[in-house]
Amino acid sequence: MAIKQKLVRTLRFRNTQKIGVLAKLISQMSSLGADLGNIATVSVGELYTIRNISIIVNDEAHLKQIIDSVKQLPECQLEAVVDDVLEIHQGGKLSVSPSHPVKTVEDLSKVYTPGVASVCRLIKDDPSQAEKYTTIPKTVAIVTNGSRVLGLGNIGPVASMPVMEGKAALFAQFSGMHMLPILINTLDVNRFIDTVESISSTFAAIQLEDIRTPDCFVIEDALTRRLNIPVFHDDQHGTATVTLAALINATRLGGHDLKTSTVGQIGLGAAGTAIGRLIMKYSKKPVYGTDVNPDCMARFKEFGGHPIGLEELMKKCSVIVATTGIGGLIKPSWVQKGQVILALSNPLPEIAMRDALNAGAAFASDGSRVNNLLAYPGLLRGAVQARATKMVPEMFIAAALAIVEHTPAQELIPDPLDPLLHDAVTKAVAKAAIKAKAV
Amino acid sequence: MAIKQKLVRTLRFRNTQKIGVLAKLISQMSSLGADLGNIATVSVGELYTIRNISIIVNDEAHLKQIIDSVKQLPECQLEAVVDDVLEIHQGGKLSVSPSHPVKTVEDLSKVYTPGVASVCRLIKDDPSQAEKYTTIPKTVAIVTNGSRVLGLGNIGPVASMPVMEGKAALFAQFSGMHMLPILINTLDVNRFIDTVESISSTFAAIQLEDIRTPDCFVIEDALTRRLNIPVFHDDQHGTATVTLAALINATRLGGHDLKTSTVGQIGLGAAGTAIGRLIMKYSKKPVYGTDVNPDCMARFKEFGGHPIGLEELMKKCSVIVATTGIGGLIKPSWVQKGQVILALSNPLPEIAMRDALNAGAAFASDGSRVNNLLAYPGLLRGAVQARATKMVPEMFIAAALAIVEHTPAQELIPDPLDPLLHDAVTKAVAKAAIKAKAV
Repeated sequence: MAIKQKLVRTLRFRNTQKIGVLAKLISQMSSLGADLGNIATVSVGELYTIRNISIIVNDEAHLKQIIDSVKQLPECQLEAVVDDVLEIHQGGKLSVSPSHPVKTVEDLSKVYTPGVASVCRLIKDDPSQAEKYTTIPKTVAIVTNGSRVLGLGNIGPVASMPVMEGKAALFAQFSGMHMLPILINTLDVNRFIDTVESISSTFAAIQLEDIRTPDCFVIEDALTRRLNIPVFHDDQHGTATVTLAALINATRLGGHDLKTSTVGQIGLGAAGTAIGRLIMKYSKKPVYGTDVNPDCMARFKEFGGHPIGLEELMKKCSVIVATTGIGGLIKPSWVQKGQVILALSNPLPEIAMRDALNAGAAFASDGSRVNNLLAYPGLLRGAVQARATKMVPEMFIAAALAIVEHTPAQELIPDPLDPLLHDAVTKAVAKAAIKAKAV
Repeated sequence: MAIKQKLVRTLRFRNTQKIGVLAKLISQMSSLGADLGNIATVSVGELYTIRNISIIVNDEAHLKQIIDSVKQLPECQLEAVVDDVLEIHQGGKLSVSPSHPVKTVEDLSKVYTPGVASVCRLIKDDPSQAEKYTTIPKTVAIVTNGSRVLGLGNIGPVASMPVMEGKAALFAQFSGMHMLPILINTLDVNRFIDTVESISSTFAAIQLEDIRTPDCFVIEDALTRRLNIPVFHDDQHGTATVTLAALINATRLGGHDLKTSTVGQIGLGAAGTAIGRLIMKYSKKPVYGTDVNPDCMARFKEFGGHPIGLEELMKKCSVIVATTGIGGLIKPSWVQKGQVILALSNPLPEIAMRDALNAGAAFASDGSRVNNLLAYPGLLRGAVQARATKMVPEMFIAAALAIVEHTPAQELIPDPLDPLLHDAVTKAVAKAAIKAKAV
């Protein structure tokens, strides 16, 4: 079931040079529900000012409504609607280049034959030298078969490539390491596992991405057993790490302490199950969980959770996390006074922040700012730096606490673009890996 | 059987400031068989000049002999022996970076969620859009199991990584595309084939590298059949392409025409077989071939070649190519007057150039300058640009003719570092692919 995704567009306006025109234009667009992004002044003339205004809208119909409306403003002329997203994707989002471009025949003899043979021999005689003389220790694979891409469902590996390149580009920027997308063209779980195992010596770690349940659990378990490098499923453990951080902050902001709260997890898919498990690991208390799928309820029980009905969960728990993908699932009448509610589904949360707060919640947030980018670069870099052979929950908790520590007062999460955050997560994860003997 | 490989070292000398000292030093080293590379002046003082002199030597014993000898020169003080090759390999030879670094939350919304979903949807609805909006059309995999690495034998995938990174770095520099090393940790041919097939949708083409015979033939055939992107085994067809170019030039320099010459191929491994086959395709005449392995002889016959004994071949043929890996195999007494001889094995050719010329050859060369770098970047880029679904001999011949056209008069091959050469090969290959209906 594909959920509608928001659109990002840049609108270029030629506005009459007059006080109040820009304000009127912006107010018009935001009153129609457009999220305003950057406003860039392209040129200022005597008669006109040209500006690029970036907006996020719900869908094409919403965009059309806004365009039709601003066309009515006599002082604003819409000159172009640019799809920046497509423009930025042209040619792909990753770049591979030589670390030492070859300029002379002598360079060639060092990078390639005959020089290279001595490096091969060195590694053959002492495989640990590959850490120093190859890119293997700084390269992570991001592997997918595209069977469950965020909000888009089973779109296959090639159509999922923009997501993989996006995560790889962000990883390179925030970890200084490399992430290479590897598309695996099969829905056969065993073939997927065998393929990743066969190519694993190319990499320092494996990130599993956008794989449907329950396949993702089987693949993660098998690869963790077979490989002695970290295998990390971001949709489970990256999401759980970031959610745990947000939840620690949210309960504080709502006047609770997560460790002593009764927590309910609504939706027990890959993300919800991992969130429930990580909270239990953190608080050492069972978490209540609910899902329409009885297999998911049974699995959650195996992991130590308490399966329960949805309305009962809402009554019993002071802290609620929802990851169902179903916008508006939580009725305002179910909300208890003082509850902390994270309704994480995108683009439509299980309950709107305002409705939850009006119904008496002490704190409420949707998932728009709970971004996996906060965790996965540092989680992988920390694991690799510690030479971890696997990912363990202690590493996720350490990452969550580092994120909490970097969160400004009154905020739910810190700025994901802050390089210091990623350094702090890396350090915390490496330390936790060594302490938990995951190396 | 591992062949000894040459070493590259930089020697730092503090020479007395006096006319003739450098000349004496250089003459000393080259008289002992060192190949001189760059000479860089580090500093010039009143009393001393410090210079870095790069040399290529046969092995550690040879290096020691040269060092011991120059230590006898009173005006030259050897200050350091640097292994530049290891230095240049530190951290690996490839760099992966984001094409558009993210600076603001708005950039993030374009590169990643929510913007990226619209690009995924576009590709899902029209898979050909992946050509425009992902890195797939500019990314080639270089895959190996390290079972036959040049002169080093079966050293396994990880120890072969420096070769893969070297070829990938050169490919990036000379094609503007990406090449990603993928190490495949199996000697099982079927598992190798299945693995490459499973990951193939990540790439625009596959380069097979350093895989032992006969596995390389089986793998190439199966993948060519199963995939609709070019599959290219450089050790066969890259080598054959460059050798054909060198041979066309060599026969001209020796006063022959390759098309009307009787050609003999000594050594029928992967490279030798491919060279023999490509010459037959070019000249439309059978080629004589010899090998100690009867299976190789039988395979060569299947491809239309004439198996024959070694001495008989030397008597019958006016043009000889040798790719046996056995230095000194060809006795000078076997050389016929006016023969053209390419003895390509490295580091020791089947017959030294001087010996062949002294024995009456019209032209002779070893393989030290017959470098695959001349061909593979343009072959792959040309194939991908033409949207070829496979590699056909017409593309190799077109590449060889483009290399011939770029060869300066009196030279065997052109400069492999000339970007114009790679552009010319690309264009010729793309044209040939379309003409041969390989698209």
